[in-house]
This record gives sequence, C-alpha cells and structure tokens, in this order.
Amino acid sequence: MDGVAPNAVAAVSEARQWDRLMQMAALGAIPGDGVNRACLTDLDRQARRLLLGWGTALGLAPSVDALGNLFLRHEGTEAGAAPVLTGSHMDTQPNGGRFDGIWGVIAGLEAIQALREAGISTRRPVELVAWTNEEGGRFAPGCMGSMAYAGFKPADTWDGVTDNEGLSFGEELRKHLALEADIPRRGLGVVDGPAPFAYVEAHIEQGPRLEAEGLDIGVVEGIQGSRWFVVEIAGKTDHAGTTPLSLRKDAVQDMLRAVSALNALMADPTDVLRFTVGRIEVHPNTSNSVADRVRFTIDFRHPDKDVLLTRGDAIARVVTEAMTTCTATVTERFHALPATFDPMVPAAVEAAAKAQGLSTLRMPSGAFHDAQFMVPVCPTGMLFVPCRGGVSHHPSEYSEPGQLAAGTRVLAAVLAELANR
Amino acid sequence: MDGVAPNAVAAVSEARQWDRLMQMAALGAIPGDGVNRACLTDLDRQARRLLLGWGTALGLAPSVDALGNLFLRHEGTEAGAAPVLTGSHMDTQPNGGRFDGIWGVIAGLEAIQALREAGISTRRPVELVAWTNEEGGRFAPGCMGSMAYAGFKPADTWDGVTDNEGLSFGEELRKHLALEADIPRRGLGVVDGPAPFAYVEAHIEQGPRLEAEGLDIGVVEGIQGSRWFVVEIAGKTDHAGTTPLSLRKDAVQDMLRAVSALNALMADPTDVLRFTVGRIEVHPNTSNSVADRVRFTIDFRHPDKDVLLTRGDAIARVVTEAMTTCTATVTERFHALPATFDPMVPAAVEAAAKAQGLSTLRMPSGAFHDAQFMVPVCPTGMLFVPCRGGVSHHPSEYSEPGQLAAGTRVLAAVLAELANR
Repeated sequence: MDGVAPNAVAAVSEARQWDRLMQMAALGAIPGDGVNRACLTDLDRQARRLLLGWGTALGLAPSVDALGNLFLRHEGTEAGAAPVLTGSHMDTQPNGGRFDGIWGVIAGLEAIQALREAGISTRRPVELVAWTNEEGGRFAPGCMGSMAYAGFKPADTWDGVTDNEGLSFGEELRKHLALEADIPRRGLGVVDGPAPFAYVEAHIEQGPRLEAEGLDIGVVEGIQGSRWFVVEIAGKTDHAGTTPLSLRKDAVQDMLRAVSALNALMADPTDVLRFTVGRIEVHPNTSNSVADRVRFTIDFRHPDKDVLLTRGDAIARVVTEAMTTCTATVTERFHALPATFDPMVPAAVEAAAKAQGLSTLRMPSGAFHDAQFMVPVCPTGMLFVPCRGGVSHHPSEYSEPGQLAAGTRVLAAVLAELANR
Repeated sequence: MDGVAPNAVAAVSEARQWDRLMQMAALGAIPGDGVNRACLTDLDRQARRLLLGWGTALGLAPSVDALGNLFLRHEGTEAGAAPVLTGSHMDTQPNGGRFDGIWGVIAGLEAIQALREAGISTRRPVELVAWTNEEGGRFAPGCMGSMAYAGFKPADTWDGVTDNEGLSFGEELRKHLALEADIPRRGLGVVDGPAPFAYVEAHIEQGPRLEAEGLDIGVVEGIQGSRWFVVEIAGKTDHAGTTPLSLRKDAVQDMLRAVSALNALMADPTDVLRFTVGRIEVHPNTSNSVADRVRFTIDFRHPDKDVLLTRGDAIARVVTEAMTTCTATVTERFHALPATFDPMVPAAVEAAAKAQGLSTLRMPSGAFHDAQFMVPVCPTGMLFVPCRGGVSHHPSEYSEPGQLAAGTRVLAAVLAELANR
C-alpha cells in the first residue's frame, strides 16, 4: 500500500474536479451562484447523464436500482469481493448551492479516476453511488434512496408522497426509471444482495467549525440524533378591530408562548444542542384577522441519545402547557437516534489525512446524511472539508478548489487502502 | 312626529327584509352559507339590478355617480332641503357572509318602504346609498366610494390599482358605468354638490359585545383609530443541524422577542385596546433552516387618539430594542385617527331604540366603515345589531331575522325623525 496510495493521491486533479463541479452547477443554476436541482426532474436527469458520460468514458460500469440510486463500478481483482462504496447525492435544496452533495459524487469519481490513472488495481471493487432524493426538498422526507438501499424502509414507502404540484413520488420515479431504461438495472442494496465492505462519504461540513479553527479535514465519528416535530395550534379567527383580547383564541399568541417555553426547555449552556423553529404557517394570515391556526416545525438535534430522548419526549407536554386559550397537537415526523460510526473508516480517514500533512478534527456531523442509514449495513464514515462561513443550503455556499481537492486526495487514499483490505 | 314614526315602525316587515337578504345572498353564494361578491363584477351588477328593481317599483328615483355609488331617492316635501342619507355597501369579503354591508342597504330600503307604506311624508328627502368597494377585497384599499364622495381623495386616485387578475380599478369602473348607462348620472357627493343633512348607517356589530351582554342595539359613537405596521426582521440563514445557536441570527427568534415586547407595550387591563399580529411570513420557511427573514403585520386600534399616538409611536423603538442578533425595519402602512360622531345621530338612534323598548349600548365601532369618511361631511351615526359569536368576514356570519328587523325599525324611526327636522 505504501507505494500505491501516493500515486493515486498525486493523480487527483484539482482543476478537473472544479471544472466538473462547475459544469454540474450550470444545471439548475439560480442567481447568486446557487443551484436548484430537485430530484427526479429533467435537470436531475441531465446531471446524471453528465456523470454517466464521465464514468463510462473511464470504463466504469453503470447501473441503477429500483429507487433510482445510480452506481458506477470500478472492478477489483478478486471476484466476488464486497466493494467499497463511496458517493453522496446530486439533488439540491430549492435555494441551494454548488457543493452540498454533488461534491461527494464528483470527489468519488475523481478519486476512482485517480486510482485508474495511477494504474492502481485494488482487491475489492470501488463503487460510486449517487443516492436519490437526499434533500427531501421536492418529496419529503429526504434520504429515500439510502433508506431503501439499507432496508430501513420498503421501496414503495413513499409512492404516495406528492410534490407541490401534486405529482407523486411513485409516478415520478416510474417515469424516471423508464427514461433511464438503457442503464443496466441492479438489485436494491442489502434488500436484494450482500452488503458493501465499507461506505465513505465526502461532504462539505455545512457548519463553521473547520473554517473557524483553520483545519483541513473533519474526521466524522457519527451523526447527531434528530427529532422533527410539527405543532398545530387551533384557536378561533376573529375581526382584529372588534374582538376584545380577553375573548380571543389567538393562535399566533399561543404559538409565541409555546416557542418561548420550548426555548427554556432546550436551553444548553454548552451550545451543543440544536433547536430550530424554521417554518411557520399562519391561517388565514391576513393583517386584520386573528389567526385561528398556526402550524410550526421543530428541528431538534443532539449527539447524546439521553438528551435527545429526555428533552424530545418533553416537547408535547411543554407545548400543551403553554396554551392559554388554544389547543395544540404535536406530531413527531422523524426520529433518528444518534449514529456512531464503526471506528474503522474514521481511523482510515484520519490516518490518510495525517499522512498527507493535513490537519484534522474529530467531530460529529450536525447535518443529516445518507451515511446515517449505512451505519447498520457496513463500517461507515465521512470526511468533511471546510465551507465558507459554515453556510450551506444557500447560493453563497462555497468551498475553495484547493480545500475540495485536499478532501478528494484523502478520499482517494482511503478508498485505495480500504479496497485492498 | 309622535304619531308618525310608530306607523312607519309597524310597517317594517321582518319577513320581506329577510327574503330580500336571502335573494341577495344567492348572488355569489359559497359553501357554508357564505357570499363572495366582489365589487364591479357581474355578481355585483346583478345585486345592484335587484336592488334597483325593488326601489323603482316603490317609486324611488335611481342615480349613480362617477365612483359607481348607487342612490335611490325618496322625495321630501320641501324643495331643495338637504336629504338624510342612509345605506352601506353591497360587496363582500372573498370568504364573506350574508349580512356585512348588504343589511345596511336592505334595511335602508325597508325603512323607506315602511315610511311610504305608512303614508308618511317627510320634509327632507331620504336617500339610500350603496357605496362602491367598501371591503377592499378586490381593489385595495376599501371605502373608495365614500372617500371619493366625501372629497377625501380625488375620484381618479385608484384608477391604477389592480386586482389579482391584473385588471385595473379605473378600467373596471368605466366598464361598469357603461353597463349602467341607463341609470341617471349624478354629481359626486360634496365634490359636486351640497352635503346631506345627516348620514345613518345600519350594520351588524362584527364583534361579540351586544350578544354577550344580551343587548338589542349598539348606539355607535365613533370609529376607533387604526394604525397598521409591517415589521421586517433580517437575520442570516443557516443549517439547523450544524450551526451553534450562539452563532445564529435567527429571525424567528427575534420576531418572538419583538412580539413579546409589543404585547407588553400594548397591555391594557381595560381591554379596550386592540393589538393583533395576524400575518407572519418566514423565509426560507423550511424546517431545517434557520430563518433569515420574517415579516409580520401589526394591527393596532384604539378609540382614544392619545393612546393611539403614544403607543403607536413607540412600536418602532420597542421592536428595534427587542432585536438581539437581527435588524428590524418598521413601516407604517395606514394611520387613521379615531372618528367621533356628532352627538345628533347617536342621540336619535338611542332615543328611537328606547322608545321601542329596546336595550342599547353606546360603543365605538371596532371595524372600519364608510361612515368614517362621512364624519367631516355631515352629522353621522351608525346603529349596530348583534351578530352570532361576533363573527363576520366568514360564511358563518349570522344575525337573526328578528334582530335585523329590530334594527330596521330603529332606523325607520331615526330616518323619519331626522327627515322632519
């Protein structure tokens, strides 16, 4: 190995990777250097064809599964050896950037290309994957492709989920697969076949820590747990000019009390806990009517399972007790316990980075990733590169070409190392 | 007078008035007993033709002015005497009810019909008016017809205002007037002629007080003042999972603080003050993003000018001081000082109600009305009848036939009394 990885690392091309990222960014470009490329759209299919073109030109074997997860396979030397899987997703948030997700796919391709250009054969195959619908921006929830691959949910779970135009995920997926009928079909992950040997995902940090501390590579040890709730408050609509405040059931005012009480519940002097009310919908939402309905979301995350369970379980009670005149229902929409990665991949990432003279930080991932669902399937890990201001899910999302290339060099070394185990 | 009004009062027909209201409610009927009849539409014109048919059958003289305000005149005995004007509006909110506005028009017609059927001649003419676009639901703002009549704004002020389909008020008004070219044209209110002797408007309360206190008639002494503001809070969007709370500029959280501080500013143990945050818009409004922008409205009303000025002027400072990490801009969109009615008409309403054995409450109007703009023109007043649960601007808006008839009997007596002064 000692003589192998350095050649692959040296073959990683910063310029080629950047050029590919910019070609991808043109598909769904929006003002301010942003990208809006929802899954299962024509833009998504154009991006996938672009990737397919690059991969097949290298001699990689393409395939697609029942969820539309797209694979490009670099063969190993040992028949039947479980592959090392790397990749991420190609869809973006509606007001997204040029690096979230797509860099992990392009980095995987670049790393495999570097292996091949360096003339390196590996014992195990290396497979590149582009997961379907990680963002959940068009069809909620996200991570459908990886969840189905990992057998976390049946493949038809989301068939009835509709987008803003009323189109269903099931129908859009069938249409999508028909349009990619020329690509060989493969079985669905561990539902239809054996598990990979390992999964490695490269991603921008989507947080401010690496940049703030001037570090090169985040060695991700796990993904914090998340619990998502929807709170619906029901009151009564009234004329804003005539109804005395004492007779109102004002859903906006009780929403205010609920969020204030939740702020107290979620207080954390260590600043590790993440609590966000990011979406609020008011009905009828007119300036001269008292609101009879408010719906708001809670996004609560923590790396410690006990905190996640104790405080998360208290949310419904705290909201209910905060009501003065309205009634509230609290529905949990998503519950993912913290995921801890097997030490194997993080150790490989850390070793490769250090061997290349890069500085590292062991950290949890604050954001959600497809890697979350791979944890029960095989040894899993992620590597992060810094992003400017910690910003993601926004057109201004940015990582420097050199930062991205450094991450890809680490990924190439990790893939070479794992694929020879 | 003693022998005159009782005959007119007795001639008011509860059944005929109710039947006419239900015929009107059929024009623009929506589910749940509601009505959607926007101004200057075919439905509006059908309603006006229905009214014209009833009025001309009685021998009333129709006319229409440059704003489309529609009049039906009952002649007096003294040539040139200033008329007593009564009426309201025929347009509704998009999800409106069967009584707001239209009852004041039908009540005026019923009262005039009762005068005539009782064989009562009055010294002054009595004119019925249906004001154009009181609600402002199709073309904002409301009260265009009465504002132009009163000379508050020039007649062409709103020509460029467009509805949701891009049609302009000016063009729709010209089309409307052409379709009513068979109706004699009159000058525009006090812009083109003398002022009326008095204006009396009958209306459902649109609030809960009369019903809650079991009273028959609201003697309206004025219309409370209103100040409307828009607050825009600017922060920074961030990933909900990755960004420590200490590094956020969360516009939702600062909105919370602003509304809490405004609640304190607007506290009123007497429960006279009306403060409403009815509209909130969050950007990007996704569950896993920290909001970078929140826009919310303030509807603040009070019958006391000093309170309206002192507390209203403090809003911008209170909002600004509530910001912790974001910035806020506060824009005042509307400012109407309280209108106080000349005591003449309220006294007449109160006396007529008491003479009929009805219970009364002197009160301000919480809602806005065309009467607001008549205050500088002539002695003005309103009478309210209870409405169920205080609900208006909703299909469930309801007043009982008997409650409405009681109001019309008071109106008939008031018109007879004022028209003989």
